[in-house]
Amino acid sequence: MITRIIGSGLLGASIGLALTRMNRTVQLADASELAAGLAQDLGAGTLATAESPDPDLIIVATPPETVADIVAEQLERYPEALVTDVASAKARIYARLGEVCSPEALSRYVGAHPMAGRERSGALAADADLFTGRPFVICPHPDAGERALRCVRELATDLGALPITMEAEAHDDAVARVSHMPQLVSSLLAARLEEADAAELDLAGQGLRDVTRLAGSDPRLWSSIIAANTAPVRRVLGELAEDLSELISGLDLMEAEGEYRGISQVASVMTRGNAGAARIPGKHGGAQIRYAQVIVLVPDEPGELGRLLTDTGHIGVNIEDLVLEHSPSQPVGRAIMSVAPAQALPLTEGLQGLGWRIAANGEQLV
Amino acid sequence: MITRIIGSGLLGASIGLALTRMNRTVQLADASELAAGLAQDLGAGTLATAESPDPDLIIVATPPETVADIVAEQLERYPEALVTDVASAKARIYARLGEVCSPEALSRYVGAHPMAGRERSGALAADADLFTGRPFVICPHPDAGERALRCVRELATDLGALPITMEAEAHDDAVARVSHMPQLVSSLLAARLEEADAAELDLAGQGLRDVTRLAGSDPRLWSSIIAANTAPVRRVLGELAEDLSELISGLDLMEAEGEYRGISQVASVMTRGNAGAARIPGKHGGAQIRYAQVIVLVPDEPGELGRLLTDTGHIGVNIEDLVLEHSPSQPVGRAIMSVAPAQALPLTEGLQGLGWRIAANGEQLV
Repeated sequence: MITRIIGSGLLGASIGLALTRMNRTVQLADASELAAGLAQDLGAGTLATAESPDPDLIIVATPPETVADIVAEQLERYPEALVTDVASAKARIYARLGEVCSPEALSRYVGAHPMAGRERSGALAADADLFTGRPFVICPHPDAGERALRCVRELATDLGALPITMEAEAHDDAVARVSHMPQLVSSLLAARLEEADAAELDLAGQGLRDVTRLAGSDPRLWSSIIAANTAPVRRVLGELAEDLSELISGLDLMEAEGEYRGISQVASVMTRGNAGAARIPGKHGGAQIRYAQVIVLVPDEPGELGRLLTDTGHIGVNIEDLVLEHSPSQPVGRAIMSVAPAQALPLTEGLQGLGWRIAANGEQLV
Repeated sequence: MITRIIGSGLLGASIGLALTRMNRTVQLADASELAAGLAQDLGAGTLATAESPDPDLIIVATPPETVADIVAEQLERYPEALVTDVASAKARIYARLGEVCSPEALSRYVGAHPMAGRERSGALAADADLFTGRPFVICPHPDAGERALRCVRELATDLGALPITMEAEAHDDAVARVSHMPQLVSSLLAARLEEADAAELDLAGQGLRDVTRLAGSDPRLWSSIIAANTAPVRRVLGELAEDLSELISGLDLMEAEGEYRGISQVASVMTRGNAGAARIPGKHGGAQIRYAQVIVLVPDEPGELGRLLTDTGHIGVNIEDLVLEHSPSQPVGRAIMSVAPAQALPLTEGLQGLGWRIAANGEQLV
């Protein structure tokens, strides 16, 4: 089977690397010859030319605003080929294709959204394992044929991803809520640090770092992702704005009428936040599991973290998660290790026996 | 020197543990005898009684709304003692004390805010190392005497914390921006997941987990923290609400007048978010340092992470940071290790030589 990938950015080049590793024939095409040439040099496939044999599967991995037209064009040019795309929002593409394509052509197309990405974009960030273990959403539509659906499911499995089937509208609503809104909120929050004094920022802790980590993402890439999904994003942001406005009203009431009027708004947002956060699936899918945390103090000196990792490995306890926390210029960091509750004591005693200082034990839902 | 700690919650009990470890005499008092008794059992000091000798230093670690009155009362009852408190907002307490205390009494008082906390509260979560390496903000006021200032600075150092001096108003603005706003925004975002379908949440990635991690915090504790700092919190949330409203206007424009009008609002928020996030001080204070990232695929099986930790320790490269990423029910996780750029290749080759799959190399500002 010959696969042609149109678009040699992060996603296109990563798919090319993964399929080439499986000894599949991959043809690369890109409006920028430079980009396609770079992907070829990285081993993602060979450049498509006028002499290239016709592809069996065409994967459109171009910027979202170009996807519908390129899919339609490819369906017409290669009447035997199956076509898919990897754009992060689907409903608007499907609406446009419904206008310009025949049902026959559409039967050979199913769109997909591999939920994988990195902070950097472009072929240079490509990674044959980018999709390994990630959700790969396949969005059927009424005209989609069984052959196209099967082919895209196989593509997902070939990439090591987890195929999930979802209607286009449900998918777009979901990514607005779990991906696009968090990205924009993280950016909005970080934007409010632009005018802060340096002394204020010296008080930043791990919480601020967590909440603003996404704010480092590429503005150009994200502008086009949001532009392709405006209605669902606008809806969830509108809901958020209403909650924020209620919270501000509560604070105004506290200011105007004494400290403790309006506090119920704060408590309500916090309580609902507890409930919402608890609904995020756990590491292993399904319900979150309660782990014990062992918090180890790690001197901020070369080699100390490596020594902790070695010692932990030797103790032989199964670590489920590990987070490192540091404040600016602090002499020690904290390594927070999550283990099954029964393993907290062996790990604590083992590390103490090797001279580590255990700050405390706690527990965590993962 | 005899130290009396009033309030046996997380902060009070942790200070008690730390000072007791240094063989200092610590007296414990709490409106709840149960709480003080628990802190005593944990080794944080001994219960203060009518026969206890007068304290030299009194640390008020009670809920924020009670702090001003207790400080005033202690200054009056013990005319030789120095008094401090650990409340998370200072201006309102200072205003109240200015009304009810004489300048002489106030000269023996300086408030502080140790920037340390945990998701759990109460003496049971106490930790003698809670303050180690954390900022400890000391807020002088015009009446504060040199003896009180010196004593609180010594307390900070004794606790292993990093003393920082800041005016009360500047401190309250700073924590509103770098601590209270991020907490509330994380909760607002997580609150929007409450009504999401389970299928939507299956698409959640690491980004959503990062942004909502703070949303697990205790509503009761945070309601009183916010209530003690309403004006600065209201101000930063108001600024955020304006930005959000502009962003929503941009999305409305995109919906109404075609995809790419209004996109500048999105790009602007993202770009300002980049700039703001880059201002957060790096792990070692000062500017962020560019590290290389080595991303390792870790099978989701018992013992695999421990084996990676052992192997990494043996290679002897100095790991600056380590983050684990997983999606629900994925067969592998990703361990993202940050190292100095020159160490990326030795680490990559060392791990590959031991059979590990390296997904990609990248870079990161820490």
